[in-house]
Amino acid sequence: MSRNQPIFVAVIGGGDASPSECRLAEEVGRQLARNEVTLVCGGLGGVMEAACRGASEEGGTTVGILPGDNRRAANPYVQIPIVTGLGHARNVIVVKSSRAVIAVGGSYGTLSEISHALQNGIPVIGLNTWSLARNGQPDNSIIPAQDAADAVKKALAAIVN
Amino acid sequence: MSRNQPIFVAVIGGGDASPSECRLAEEVGRQLARNEVTLVCGGLGGVMEAACRGASEEGGTTVGILPGDNRRAANPYVQIPIVTGLGHARNVIVVKSSRAVIAVGGSYGTLSEISHALQNGIPVIGLNTWSLARNGQPDNSIIPAQDAADAVKKALAAIVN
Amino acid sequence: MSRNQPIFVAVIGGGDASPSECRLAEEVGRQLARNEVTLVCGGLGGVMEAACRGASEEGGTTVGILPGDNRRAANPYVQIPIVTGLGHARNVIVVKSSRAVIAVGGSYGTLSEISHALQNGIPVIGLNTWSLARNGQPDNSIIPAQDAADAVKKALAAIVN
Amino acid sequence: MSRNQPIFVAVIGGGDASPSECRLAEEVGRQLARNEVTLVCGGLGGVMEAACRGASEEGGTTVGILPGDNRRAANPYVQIPIVTGLGHARNVIVVKSSRAVIAVGGSYGTLSEISHALQNGIPVIGLNTWSLARNGQPDNSIIPAQDAADAVKKALAAIVN
Repeated sequence: MSRNQPIFVAVIGGGDASPSECRLAEEVGRQLARNEVTLVCGGLGGVMEAACRGASEEGGTTVGILPGDNRRAANPYVQIPIVTGLGHARNVIVVKSSRAVIAVGGSYGTLSEISHALQNGIPVIGLNTWSLARNGQPDNSIIPAQDAADAVKKALAAIVN
Repeated sequence: MSRNQPIFVAVIGGGDASPSECRLAEEVGRQLARNEVTLVCGGLGGVMEAACRGASEEGGTTVGILPGDNRRAANPYVQIPIVTGLGHARNVIVVKSSRAVIAVGGSYGTLSEISHALQNGIPVIGLNTWSLARNGQPDNSIIPAQDAADAVKKALAAIVN
Repeated sequence: MSRNQPIFVAVIGGGDASPSECRLAEEVGRQLARNEVTLVCGGLGGVMEAACRGASEEGGTTVGILPGDNRRAANPYVQIPIVTGLGHARNVIVVKSSRAVIAVGGSYGTLSEISHALQNGIPVIGLNTWSLARNGQPDNSIIPAQDAADAVKKALAAIVN
Repeated sequence: MSRNQPIFVAVIGGGDASPSECRLAEEVGRQLARNEVTLVCGGLGGVMEAACRGASEEGGTTVGILPGDNRRAANPYVQIPIVTGLGHARNVIVVKSSRAVIAVGGSYGTLSEISHALQNGIPVIGLNTWSLARNGQPDNSIIPAQDAADAVKKALAAIVN
């Protein structure tokens, strides 16, 4: 991979998201694009679509890793649709293709992506998302952020070179 | 699938597990076998090996869904080694092949399996494992168990027909 | 894996197969079971179902690696249904889980399994199936068999220890 | 997906390729870029690298679907590296993400991609690659091309809308 390759960061969250989560995701997408980061996501609606819309509006690049067999399932702001046909197993690819992950809200699919990221040593930034405890002890691996700009800043700072 | 097909239940947990977690997993394996349940796991060491050992000792059937390309990586108590070469994406198969999941301790790989199970509506029973909160609210989807016998009893009761 | 682990051999072929292909596959299944070989297949109908039926009638073990999310899609002779949700990517698992592959007829899905087997150095025995040429030169990697008994004999002989 | 989304075409072939295959692949990459087609490939060396180099030189976009866990395994001309960790199962994604496939030479991995494409109704154009026969009858599904320009022309003509 060439030296000047852009950094890839995933935005993960529910396909069925609240208006406030979508606003947050859209702003995360905008901030990523302004930082010349390529956005990776699961390619569908909700948080994924909002993030892609924000990134596209700022001229950023968006990659959607689709679970099904049909590229037309991608939201309209996905520029690079990857068709996997793998169902939920595509979540692993969203994470592995990224240097950091920003979670906005989200349900169990998002939690699976958070888990795969932490399993692979990929930093996870959280906005109104899951918190974890193991055997009664809090696990603080998810780095909390205040807002979209803070999330992007922390994601870029956390990337291991 | 024929009427008398045995029920499949997954035991998930760390490849690197404590002695007490391994004792617990072994007893879960024994209890599953006594209930004529087929044990599914990730096929490797730690909790997976202990559960397979317990099940084998009671004459049960054990399936190991291996992440790598080598069937020889399976622990010696796996009777049906499935070689996926898929890496962490094999976690999805462990879960989807099972009617219920029993988590014993575990790290982020286990958490990814818990997440995929909950995403698919597959009940999860927990023994000294993760607890979850979403946006500050506890998520009580993981059904806590007191011991191995209780976990197996709750797993069998939770299976949706 | 323990010393006395049974050998796993895949039977691959069309879900939509001719009566003569199904008779051939059923006999392959029977011969495998008589040799105490565990049968691996894609778990669905046609050649897969016929092979599982033959093996089951002789008391053999049958594993079905299913493409979808529903274990009920397995044919009634699958004893160990593995639910992948991976679509066509499950073909790789059918092959990698086996020490040899016997192809009976088959279409492009079968050809993909033949290819993945040859790519992994797993011997392929052919019964009325594909033949290959590369850049105009015949590729004789698929070992032709005369009938079901010959196919099973050649599969067992070809297994690399 | 928006109306003006570029067309995605895969170039498949050996990681270990002859100089003449690499020249052919490079010219295919150039022709794709001149037609504003986004190039999809397996992301590694040989034919994949040559095609990406050709496309990059003409200002085209290149996507590499990597088998391993390391984005650094991508050839230097991959602009969008997708990290799957799926091993050979990533071949399915290369194919499904594309509207047509151009095969240049290639070994069994390439044959698996040809098979998956034909299984999915995705047209395959061949340059000095495999030819197929089923049960003794030639299968002419692979569309032969004379040279790189002819291959790209035929690929674009064969795309089903």
